[in-house]
Amino acid sequence: MGALVNQQILLVSRPIREPRPDNFRLVRVPLLDPRQMQDGQVLVRHHFLSLDPYMRGRMDEGTSYAVPQPLDQVMLGATAGEVIASKTPEFKVGDTVVGYGGWQEYSLVDGTRPGALRKVDTTRLALSAYLGAVGMPGVAAWYGLTQIIEPKAGSTLVVSAASGAVGSVVGQLAKLRGCRVVGLAGGDHKCRFVTEELGFDACIDYKQYGDLQSLSEALQRACPKGIDACFENVGGVILDAVMQQANAFARIAVCGMIAGYNGAPQVMANPTLILVTRMKIEGFIVGDHLAMWPPALLELSELVASGQLKYRETVSHGLASAPEAFIGLLGGKNFGKQLVKLH
Amino acid sequence: MGALVNQQILLVSRPIREPRPDNFRLVRVPLLDPRQMQDGQVLVRHHFLSLDPYMRGRMDEGTSYAVPQPLDQVMLGATAGEVIASKTPEFKVGDTVVGYGGWQEYSLVDGTRPGALRKVDTTRLALSAYLGAVGMPGVAAWYGLTQIIEPKAGSTLVVSAASGAVGSVVGQLAKLRGCRVVGLAGGDHKCRFVTEELGFDACIDYKQYGDLQSLSEALQRACPKGIDACFENVGGVILDAVMQQANAFARIAVCGMIAGYNGAPQVMANPTLILVTRMKIEGFIVGDHLAMWPPALLELSELVASGQLKYRETVSHGLASAPEAFIGLLGGKNFGKQLVKLH
Repeated sequence: MGALVNQQILLVSRPIREPRPDNFRLVRVPLLDPRQMQDGQVLVRHHFLSLDPYMRGRMDEGTSYAVPQPLDQVMLGATAGEVIASKTPEFKVGDTVVGYGGWQEYSLVDGTRPGALRKVDTTRLALSAYLGAVGMPGVAAWYGLTQIIEPKAGSTLVVSAASGAVGSVVGQLAKLRGCRVVGLAGGDHKCRFVTEELGFDACIDYKQYGDLQSLSEALQRACPKGIDACFENVGGVILDAVMQQANAFARIAVCGMIAGYNGAPQVMANPTLILVTRMKIEGFIVGDHLAMWPPALLELSELVASGQLKYRETVSHGLASAPEAFIGLLGGKNFGKQLVKLH
Repeated sequence: MGALVNQQILLVSRPIREPRPDNFRLVRVPLLDPRQMQDGQVLVRHHFLSLDPYMRGRMDEGTSYAVPQPLDQVMLGATAGEVIASKTPEFKVGDTVVGYGGWQEYSLVDGTRPGALRKVDTTRLALSAYLGAVGMPGVAAWYGLTQIIEPKAGSTLVVSAASGAVGSVVGQLAKLRGCRVVGLAGGDHKCRFVTEELGFDACIDYKQYGDLQSLSEALQRACPKGIDACFENVGGVILDAVMQQANAFARIAVCGMIAGYNGAPQVMANPTLILVTRMKIEGFIVGDHLAMWPPALLELSELVASGQLKYRETVSHGLASAPEAFIGLLGGKNFGKQLVKLH
């Protein structure tokens, strides 16, 4: 291999509310000559970028849970790709790997750093699955469901963003555990997928309900025995409506609040319900719970390989498409896991 | 004893927001002749009524966690008194007992029903203590602190309504467990009591801060390492300010939301913080956790008897004073546990 060119997308300004294309910039930089790699380094060619709602929080300065995305640096994010050069015996050319390479075509990784790269088996599962149902979104679903909600068979669980990368896994895992599962999704085509393909008991098209009262009534119809648990990806009026229909001792795992990510003012309408229903509301981030990843990934990979866990992807093509795809994700334009395929 | 007259206070109409004296009515009814008592019955003369914020929720129709207080019936509530007649060997005339006799001078109780009456030892503790620090409020403090917050030595805990029956116990138990404890109370005299008598590290007079921002800044000054836990009795802007200063993995036990009890509109300003700080917020009611009462009462009674746990009482005199005292309690006019002494 000679000198390669690496295309990257940088964050060049912080969005006020919704990100705009001009918050990002595509640049071309020379890639390190593989012959100059140091011991332990691995050069990865990315096949897929993962686009995830949490990235919006990191684009703000100091208001999110993680270190903010630095300006004028490559957008951070998970990637799946292939080793094209290696200076460590742990990784060989041709290995398929997932890592945290960011919005660029190649990444140079310290392969000796624990967790920096993970080899994945693409003979049983598609490479892209390791960014979705068998990756961070799947682990988020597994963690919130099994460690915070601890669902009981026969109980009623509500999942928002039900057709998405996380919500679709939550609902299917809960069905396998004997729950009645009701999804919320935006649009009839997503709702039909959620019930007909994923096997949820019901799915509410939240776009049909313009206010808290009507959404709450729709939940009541779909959950005649009330709501025992909720896996929350959206927040806002959806969380308010769920709280109105919650049973005593309801548990709400808060994985995302995408309704507020673009800075729209968002309040909780009736926090007194936390007391009245003796509710537990708990926020979590899967990165805090690394010890739970192996058992989660084991269950998830078995279920996907055996066809018991289904997922859907929306794929945009080419690095340059990433900003628009990300903006669409925040607006719910994706259908399932949002990926960027690089070639 | 001949035929006795029993005075009672009934709830005769439901308050819209703040209760008013005319929501209650004092009535005089003949008391059962003790010679007509049935086997198992115990006649108790009340010395003290307990007034508690939770009673406001029960005055509404079907919006609280418990069965609503029925109209035209004796106001429900805990009582401490003395057995004056008994048809069961488990209770003798002269025994001091706590029960759930309601706002009246006497109650006729089925002494064989488990938990209906509990004999208490007034040689080590004052009778009224069993309605406060060694009663339901003390158990609420103990439960929320030890079972939901699980405080670590060196962590910072905030308690609202810090001079009250529950808050005062929370803070002292947390100090014994090695926490830095910051209270919130209304007025300089309450704050001085909280720091000088109860030994809290600091106490903020929330009446000095008219908005979320200034209250949040006051908390920041009192909690330079941030807030790891909060025992919430008030809600509203106090909870919002605590959430703004919360550290990662903060735990909030919600025991009361007195700010919203009188129906004033109340929202949570920034629920996204639940996710950002991976916060756990959990509401609880001590009546749900009867198995924890014995260990809680054991610790609390030892601490009060040995002088390590202090409390303060506000006592109004005569049954007729109960409605005004209760209205004052909801407005924060009490200082410590609010009681009514009947004679």
